[in-house]
Amino acid sequence: MNQDYIKPDNWSIIEEGFDVNRVKSSESLFSIGNGAMGQRANFEEEYSGSTFQGSYIAGVYYPDKTRVGWWKNGYPEYFAKVLNAPNWIGINIQVNGESLDLFTCKKIENFRRELNMKKGWLSRSFKAILKNDIKVEVKTKRFLSLDLDEIGAIKYEVTPINSDAEIVFQPYIDSGITNEDTNWDDKFWDTLNVSHKNNQAFIEAKTMKTDFYTCTFMESQVFINGKSVLIEPNIQADSNVSIFSYSHHVKQGETYAIHKFGGYTVDRNHDKSQLVSVAKRVLETATEKGFSQLLEDQKQAWETIWSMSDITIEGDVKAQQGIRFNIFQLNQTYLGKDSRLNIGPKGFTGEKYGGSTYWDTEAYCIPFYMATKDQKVARSLLEYRYNHLDKAIENAEKLGFSNGAALYPMVTMNGEECHNEWEITFEEIHRNGAIAFAVYNYYKYTGDYSYIPEKGLEVLIGIARFWQQRATFSADKNKYVILGVTGPNEYENNVNNNFYTNYIAKWCINYALENIQKIKVEYPADYKRIMDKVNLSTPELNDWKKVADNMYFPFSEKHNVYLQQDGFLDKELIKVTDLDNSQRPINQKWSWDRILRSPYIKQADTLQGFYFFEDEFTNEELERHFDFYEPFTVHESSLSPCVHSIQAAKLGRMEQAYTFYLRTSRLDLDDYNHEVHEGLHITSMAGTWMSIVEGFGGMRVKNNTLYFEPKIPEQWKEYSFKVNFRNQILKVNVSKNQTHFQLEGTDSLQISVNSKMLTITPDNLVTI
Amino acid sequence: MNQDYIKPDNWSIIEEGFDVNRVKSSESLFSIGNGAMGQRANFEEEYSGSTFQGSYIAGVYYPDKTRVGWWKNGYPEYFAKVLNAPNWIGINIQVNGESLDLFTCKKIENFRRELNMKKGWLSRSFKAILKNDIKVEVKTKRFLSLDLDEIGAIKYEVTPINSDAEIVFQPYIDSGITNEDTNWDDKFWDTLNVSHKNNQAFIEAKTMKTDFYTCTFMESQVFINGKSVLIEPNIQADSNVSIFSYSHHVKQGETYAIHKFGGYTVDRNHDKSQLVSVAKRVLETATEKGFSQLLEDQKQAWETIWSMSDITIEGDVKAQQGIRFNIFQLNQTYLGKDSRLNIGPKGFTGEKYGGSTYWDTEAYCIPFYMATKDQKVARSLLEYRYNHLDKAIENAEKLGFSNGAALYPMVTMNGEECHNEWEITFEEIHRNGAIAFAVYNYYKYTGDYSYIPEKGLEVLIGIARFWQQRATFSADKNKYVILGVTGPNEYENNVNNNFYTNYIAKWCINYALENIQKIKVEYPADYKRIMDKVNLSTPELNDWKKVADNMYFPFSEKHNVYLQQDGFLDKELIKVTDLDNSQRPINQKWSWDRILRSPYIKQADTLQGFYFFEDEFTNEELERHFDFYEPFTVHESSLSPCVHSIQAAKLGRMEQAYTFYLRTSRLDLDDYNHEVHEGLHITSMAGTWMSIVEGFGGMRVKNNTLYFEPKIPEQWKEYSFKVNFRNQILKVNVSKNQTHFQLEGTDSLQISVNSKMLTITPDNLVTI
Repeated sequence: MNQDYIKPDNWSIIEEGFDVNRVKSSESLFSIGNGAMGQRANFEEEYSGSTFQGSYIAGVYYPDKTRVGWWKNGYPEYFAKVLNAPNWIGINIQVNGESLDLFTCKKIENFRRELNMKKGWLSRSFKAILKNDIKVEVKTKRFLSLDLDEIGAIKYEVTPINSDAEIVFQPYIDSGITNEDTNWDDKFWDTLNVSHKNNQAFIEAKTMKTDFYTCTFMESQVFINGKSVLIEPNIQADSNVSIFSYSHHVKQGETYAIHKFGGYTVDRNHDKSQLVSVAKRVLETATEKGFSQLLEDQKQAWETIWSMSDITIEGDVKAQQGIRFNIFQLNQTYLGKDSRLNIGPKGFTGEKYGGSTYWDTEAYCIPFYMATKDQKVARSLLEYRYNHLDKAIENAEKLGFSNGAALYPMVTMNGEECHNEWEITFEEIHRNGAIAFAVYNYYKYTGDYSYIPEKGLEVLIGIARFWQQRATFSADKNKYVILGVTGPNEYENNVNNNFYTNYIAKWCINYALENIQKIKVEYPADYKRIMDKVNLSTPELNDWKKVADNMYFPFSEKHNVYLQQDGFLDKELIKVTDLDNSQRPINQKWSWDRILRSPYIKQADTLQGFYFFEDEFTNEELERHFDFYEPFTVHESSLSPCVHSIQAAKLGRMEQAYTFYLRTSRLDLDDYNHEVHEGLHITSMAGTWMSIVEGFGGMRVKNNTLYFEPKIPEQWKEYSFKVNFRNQILKVNVSKNQTHFQLEGTDSLQISVNSKMLTITPDNLVTI
Repeated sequence: MNQDYIKPDNWSIIEEGFDVNRVKSSESLFSIGNGAMGQRANFEEEYSGSTFQGSYIAGVYYPDKTRVGWWKNGYPEYFAKVLNAPNWIGINIQVNGESLDLFTCKKIENFRRELNMKKGWLSRSFKAILKNDIKVEVKTKRFLSLDLDEIGAIKYEVTPINSDAEIVFQPYIDSGITNEDTNWDDKFWDTLNVSHKNNQAFIEAKTMKTDFYTCTFMESQVFINGKSVLIEPNIQADSNVSIFSYSHHVKQGETYAIHKFGGYTVDRNHDKSQLVSVAKRVLETATEKGFSQLLEDQKQAWETIWSMSDITIEGDVKAQQGIRFNIFQLNQTYLGKDSRLNIGPKGFTGEKYGGSTYWDTEAYCIPFYMATKDQKVARSLLEYRYNHLDKAIENAEKLGFSNGAALYPMVTMNGEECHNEWEITFEEIHRNGAIAFAVYNYYKYTGDYSYIPEKGLEVLIGIARFWQQRATFSADKNKYVILGVTGPNEYENNVNNNFYTNYIAKWCINYALENIQKIKVEYPADYKRIMDKVNLSTPELNDWKKVADNMYFPFSEKHNVYLQQDGFLDKELIKVTDLDNSQRPINQKWSWDRILRSPYIKQADTLQGFYFFEDEFTNEELERHFDFYEPFTVHESSLSPCVHSIQAAKLGRMEQAYTFYLRTSRLDLDDYNHEVHEGLHITSMAGTWMSIVEGFGGMRVKNNTLYFEPKIPEQWKEYSFKVNFRNQILKVNVSKNQTHFQLEGTDSLQISVNSKMLTITPDNLVTI
């Protein structure tokens, strides 16, 4: 762990005391979002110290010019990236003509920041002595409404403590923003119109190239000691800013407050000519309710979310805080309301990683959303890929594949590839497997087969075609090999026969073949429609089968393990524990070639295969592979600890499972990877959820039935979670010696606990 | 071949007819240089069509900010690149107020360009009808003086044909230039002073960051019908340009001419405060001689060069033209006068490849310079690397090596790495071997051992240390392996156990050990001095030996060949001849992953080892490996055909050897690789020389003796070359049935011809 300033608390993320060196880290940790937009926890008022300003609108991206030193054929010329959106939270504060700025003021006392996860708001309070010796007390509260997801609200209160003061609130909106990660110092926004009416201001702007039209808006109300006052604002506007100044002579001890409502309307949801009028309606609704009622609604909305997705942990505040932080951030990022959206690795908390969609969604996020939301949310995530199938086929064509073979991009926003490292873009092709696996996983969990004949099969066929073409027949081995790939462990590039890739390739082909057969028999109309489209011949299917049946898997007789890739045993097999600590993290200390020739594993690779396909291996095989590979694993990817936690729990190694759990659940809170200032690791947070439910709870789905093998870390008194299994809500509560199961609804449910089947009836607490 | 517009001629490169689409190609092909500076064949007068302006000063470079999409530890933050220097050749021409511009004029007749390689000048002539219907005849001649290597001279003649005309010559100098390949649109030059006196103008400028001070200068004389006339120029100057306008009413049929002298003085050779006064002296010398005398001197200087380095070919004009073009360009690029300089892959003809020094120098150029110049030129090239040893050690440290291990950069200008592709920068480490090999090769050819105790041994030790540390012990193989490398065949990245790399690594260690022993015994004082510096212990030497003695080489029993790398036989081994032509060149048609998993070889790799170390393999082994690898070789590197030509000749396959010879010698003239517009392939031109001398002539040095096995392609009547072997000049003349040897000087020389020893005495033509 690299930082320890977040106060342990069951329901809140709390920072006390102001430290300029923590500003960027806290801006990430205290981020807020509502699925439609989100923002880093930037201060409302001016801050002249080091900060990373970020406000993001879901689905609004920009095709930036690709920057590479050495061009390779097949790189995208432009790639979509998340775009910093106009600022609507800004409220500059003038106190007797001096700007309140925590970086320059004389003294700051009692600085406190709280992200209340139960109720969904962010607050800040402090006392500051300005350079002009005026001392003010400040309290702020901010949230992005879940109910009205185009708007957020801010309450900003200033009380001069040691004298009267002339205080000016300057709420503003500003479209003159850029990205931190801009490649060419390009401007991304074209401001079309800056307007205001009464207390409202609007900036209409569109993104360059992509032409996403947005209206950024605000309206403010001011109060003295809680009583609304009418102050005529002074209004300044230029080509991309609108500033309203509310000036008031505030008596010592009096509280001058502003309620600011603001947000975005976007042309994904409205006609672009209507953005201002919709914004007016939204502001009307919000101001009619007022800050307090909106806040109350917010609490209710979060209560609904928590009622389904909360995990409780007794006896370990840090673990409890960690899991709730993860669940909270996932829900802030994606609520499954719009199938055009997806889950970016950094959510709305930073710009890194360019696009929004990685294989993380399929491999890590879908199980969380399947179990804690209505199953149509997961289906919506699958449809996102179905809608991108044509682009995946185009992408494969760029790399020389044909006949409808589909290679999904490594990183995308709109279906097009966003990444340009050849060893990733062109070679980290296992991502295609995860997309097929998610189809399988969705059906396994939900029992909803309808998706496959309707949409999924076409995706499975495109992917199977890719694998068949991508494999090479090795005359030398008399097997099919897959050359030149990067596995999930990105600390190996351009290797041959990555076990995981070969395994999932074979699986994908077989799974596609199996479903083609099933649909042929059971859904003849769908079958005909699909075959008319994809033109599959028997010889082609035979070619697929030949590849699947004759896939090569590198294996060591000596160690009795599958090898991560050809040649793995040529490495100097020094365990991570024997590596000097000064060398860690290796991705910051070592040159790339040294990392590549080392045995060190960034994240589960062979073990990822054992995780996805655990039913195809025995526990002894898992144990042998875990013991062989984990000691070389540096867990420098956020996606690593959760899988290892689940597997350690499965092997009964609860101490190790617990250590991995803490690492995954507090990855950002404790900044294990030295990078939280860049944003949070949103997608791996779903892995944290899995490490409790699948790891400690031992939950699996087999033969349409939920299986549990509950375990509990020694450090915990008890823990509980809920899952939605095929529209039945089951609450599981695990303590040292017993497990309770409680079912909502009216129908009973058969489950297996520690290999014994039992029937749970609603409203009967079943204790094992 | 991709173009065929150069007229076959024994001594000249000739273009007839004007074609806008050939402008950039011809700008490369007709480049001129004198070792100290060089320039593309840009027109003197304005040209508004597509052009690539380039004038370069040896040793003047710029540390540009590295541009990469995805940063890796160990990349250079800045890297040195060749820098476009101020323009001194410019002469704009006004005819009745209209600018002469071949891109816009109405008609061009009789356009002809000639690069006379015998005499070292570039000429151009044409008739043009301007938009104002004035028809002019233009003749120009330009050269960069070999004797006065800071100056060049231009004669520009204009004759109005169809009427009188007001003609203005506007010679200018201009430091407001940029690079074609600028990464950030940076300005590279800081202009310090623009001044003029009488007919002379000077621009003092320095490069940003590197602070190379230069003075660009010019002086002009004007003539009517060959008679000097005094015309007072109108002078315009701004912050980085100085323009002199010489206006004259020229009668129909009269020839108005300007002689312009210009060039650079640089602070590598003079105190920076003296650059203008030195320039004045240079101009004084040049103008006193005048254009004609300078041109006569130029002819003499080239005669001296040709007398030693010419290769004649009878009966095949294109082959003759090709070899002379190669020899001419090599001599234009590097004359061995300054050990701070080296041979850039594009010489003074383009910007591509950033730095100036690649392993090309050691692997390809040194043999040419050893045989056609005084041997101190080759020694100077070795010293260049000795002078960079500390930086090579630093470079290795950045990649995690220690204890004086040296890794020479892949690309450099000043000893620092200039390249930032991890698979090249960090992994194409075989370059280190070529640098050691050149030390061996120099001693073998010249017999001058003194370089090794004086300087070479330290280089050999640093390199041996690198290889020992870079090898990994594979417990699985019970051998030392070298993981994660890129061999000379850059169409494979991050492979394990590249045969060539492993072989040269072993050789380097053994060669260092051998020389340590020899110097210990024969040069005890040097030995002590070196040991005091490098601190070599017996255990360390034992570690070296262990690696060398137990190096692993991948080998196929089935094919009875060494494998290019582990896993080579897993590829789909489809020969190049079975590849559809539409797929070629694969580096322009295929995505990188497809290239990597294909068997296709960019340039000699395993065969490069067989070339360097041919005495360690039998002819049968060579034949087997040639037959195995050549069919997969696409020769998409300029360095490929020459090695294959030499080996084909050695195997007696003269038709194939001849095809490769044409490809190497006319690579640029016929633009085999679709890229001549970017500049010429200078370093591979030395390979062309080798393909005649070593390939057809069969020349080798064994046991301090020259060996020959002369062969001749069927297409040729005879050919001849000269070599300087240990200060004795031997001329070899090969025809169908006999070979003549002729020796200059006073001492006799023992040589071996077709395995028979014979003694050649001076001035006795020996015929075999």
